[in-house]
Amino acid sequence: MPNFSFSIHTKSKKSDARRGTITTPYGKIETPAFVTVGTKGTVKSLDAQDLTRSNIQMIFVNTYHLVLSPGVDVIQKGGGIHNLTKIQVPIISDSGGFQVFSLAKSDRKNEESPKLVKITHDGVLFRSHIDGKQHEFTPEYSIKAQSKIGADFIVTFDECVYYGATEKYTEKSMQRTHEWAQRSLRASRLKHQQKIFGVIQGGMYKKFRRASAEFIASLSFWGLAIGGVSVGETKKEMRDVVKWSMEVLHKDKRPIHLLGVGYVDDIFDMIKMGVDTFDCVVPTRQARLGRLYVQKFENGKMKFENYNMIDIYKTIFKRDLKPIDERCECYTCKNFSKAYLHHLFKQRELLAYRLATIHNLYFIEKLFERIRRNIELGNF
Amino acid sequence: MPNFSFSIHTKSKKSDARRGTITTPYGKIETPAFVTVGTKGTVKSLDAQDLTRSNIQMIFVNTYHLVLSPGVDVIQKGGGIHNLTKIQVPIISDSGGFQVFSLAKSDRKNEESPKLVKITHDGVLFRSHIDGKQHEFTPEYSIKAQSKIGADFIVTFDECVYYGATEKYTEKSMQRTHEWAQRSLRASRLKHQQKIFGVIQGGMYKKFRRASAEFIASLSFWGLAIGGVSVGETKKEMRDVVKWSMEVLHKDKRPIHLLGVGYVDDIFDMIKMGVDTFDCVVPTRQARLGRLYVQKFENGKMKFENYNMIDIYKTIFKRDLKPIDERCECYTCKNFSKAYLHHLFKQRELLAYRLATIHNLYFIEKLFERIRRNIELGNF
Repeated sequence: MPNFSFSIHTKSKKSDARRGTITTPYGKIETPAFVTVGTKGTVKSLDAQDLTRSNIQMIFVNTYHLVLSPGVDVIQKGGGIHNLTKIQVPIISDSGGFQVFSLAKSDRKNEESPKLVKITHDGVLFRSHIDGKQHEFTPEYSIKAQSKIGADFIVTFDECVYYGATEKYTEKSMQRTHEWAQRSLRASRLKHQQKIFGVIQGGMYKKFRRASAEFIASLSFWGLAIGGVSVGETKKEMRDVVKWSMEVLHKDKRPIHLLGVGYVDDIFDMIKMGVDTFDCVVPTRQARLGRLYVQKFENGKMKFENYNMIDIYKTIFKRDLKPIDERCECYTCKNFSKAYLHHLFKQRELLAYRLATIHNLYFIEKLFERIRRNIELGNF
Repeated sequence: MPNFSFSIHTKSKKSDARRGTITTPYGKIETPAFVTVGTKGTVKSLDAQDLTRSNIQMIFVNTYHLVLSPGVDVIQKGGGIHNLTKIQVPIISDSGGFQVFSLAKSDRKNEESPKLVKITHDGVLFRSHIDGKQHEFTPEYSIKAQSKIGADFIVTFDECVYYGATEKYTEKSMQRTHEWAQRSLRASRLKHQQKIFGVIQGGMYKKFRRASAEFIASLSFWGLAIGGVSVGETKKEMRDVVKWSMEVLHKDKRPIHLLGVGYVDDIFDMIKMGVDTFDCVVPTRQARLGRLYVQKFENGKMKFENYNMIDIYKTIFKRDLKPIDERCECYTCKNFSKAYLHHLFKQRELLAYRLATIHNLYFIEKLFERIRRNIELGNF
């Protein structure tokens, strides 16, 4: 098996954006890179060949969901997540932290006393949303589950602090996350074929975000991830949180992943701060809702930072025999018209979701390709 | 464009089963053949490449549905159904008769006075189940719509008589169907790139079935179709209806299509009566319900007339890492385990329906391949 590596080739002159390559046993990832979400071991509506068709570089799967179904022992017996799903691009699994703390959030009026979920020094006790069975996630359990899943990259178990947490609770939570990071790191040492990312937390507080970035960066993680960003309620809060973390991290030579962000305009700003990879459900979710990306042109020139979105359900597309985007070379645009897609969506035909997803992902990948080229040219 | 032709190569010594080839501009169909249903211009969950993957020989689309969405003018402007959908195998469209009379059925307690649907000498007036708009199907309208759809084969507009119709009503209905068949044939003369099938009706009465077969066969249709069979409430009724028709038709040199039948065991019997092609939703519908076909073996020998069906939702498959059918060479069985399919179905992941459909169709096509081989060997 080839080794893992990360190299940075170029840095933009106009921002902290950087152009790199992550090498893995399942191939290279050119960064900045978009990571497509395949929560339950499938990118909704696509198969592994469709991923290649859309130039997907990496897939993100969720440990919480995979523990509940099909179960990590089944995945391990099935030869790991790559073999079970036939996904042949690199895969990263998260720790389950975000999901179990999301369960807690809905349940928690008083920060210290959640009912469905019990947070202890050791980990998190919760009930499955599927069958009500009790599960316990600890740093060691999460790492073990992730090693059974067998993704190329794994992530430390962290507490994703809820929005509006007090300074006191945020500090306590951050310290717990740091301790869990160390325990995750120790537990992961057994697994040489997987590389681990440490997760930075610190809530909405600048001092904790900086402290967390410094602490996590001081440990021997292969990569670094910024967590708890999507918890922010405004775009400004989200950007601040990333900015505070990246002020510490932007010179780090390890790949930096941003967990669960965001809209395309968010991604642009965060690439400028030096973030290398992003997982995000937005392009696939919007595709399934019939919201399809098209290039935006101004004075005949493509504005590569901008794009429009069409709602394919609209009656104006009923007779529109042109593809979604005439300049797009994806499988969907090369073969099918908006009229056919409109018909498939209106009739709830399953093919609709797949063709739309192939297009939106191809579009996003093309966008990232152009971003990478612009960084190489020093223009980003 | 190559011409259309039908040639019969072999007849079974043990039954009226016959082995033939239909040639069309979109390729050859080896008969007896299964025709996969793609009602709205899409085989539910599959794209055109998946059809090739499952060795599909012909697709059946429904004029009633296509008139309502996307509309036959859109299809025509889009270059016809092949170009709009990118389906590259031969296509047959039905006349819409079955659907408009199904609308009538639910509405009709008294045979002569349906309310939502009005049947006249000229045709059928009804309201769209989608938007309530009024539509009128006449023989001429159906043929015109079908010529806009542009399938390789089209079908005459007929009345599909409801179950339990009196002798008097059945006779009247049959005569109307015969008149409409002649009007359909006249209307179709304009379209040389399409070939037309005449539809035999006659309800549940032997004398009318024979009379209808004789009358329709006397006209210059390119092919013959038996309609109204699925209306029968028992398997015996269904078989009788086909038998009475086939007693007249089995020596006819034109291809004989059976409309909307049925389960695999039905198909076996009807091939023995000399039927050449069958359209049927069963394998694709069952696939989407998680009911997957597997070969049946007795004393280590494959029983090619039998098959088992598994329910992939069952808990016994949660940890079953074997493919659906270890001897199957379909895309699904070559790549995925029952455990993964069970997980996808339980989690309602869209990929589930596609992988299951690919398997069931591949399975049915293999079954037909074996039937054809057995006819060639004189053993069917």
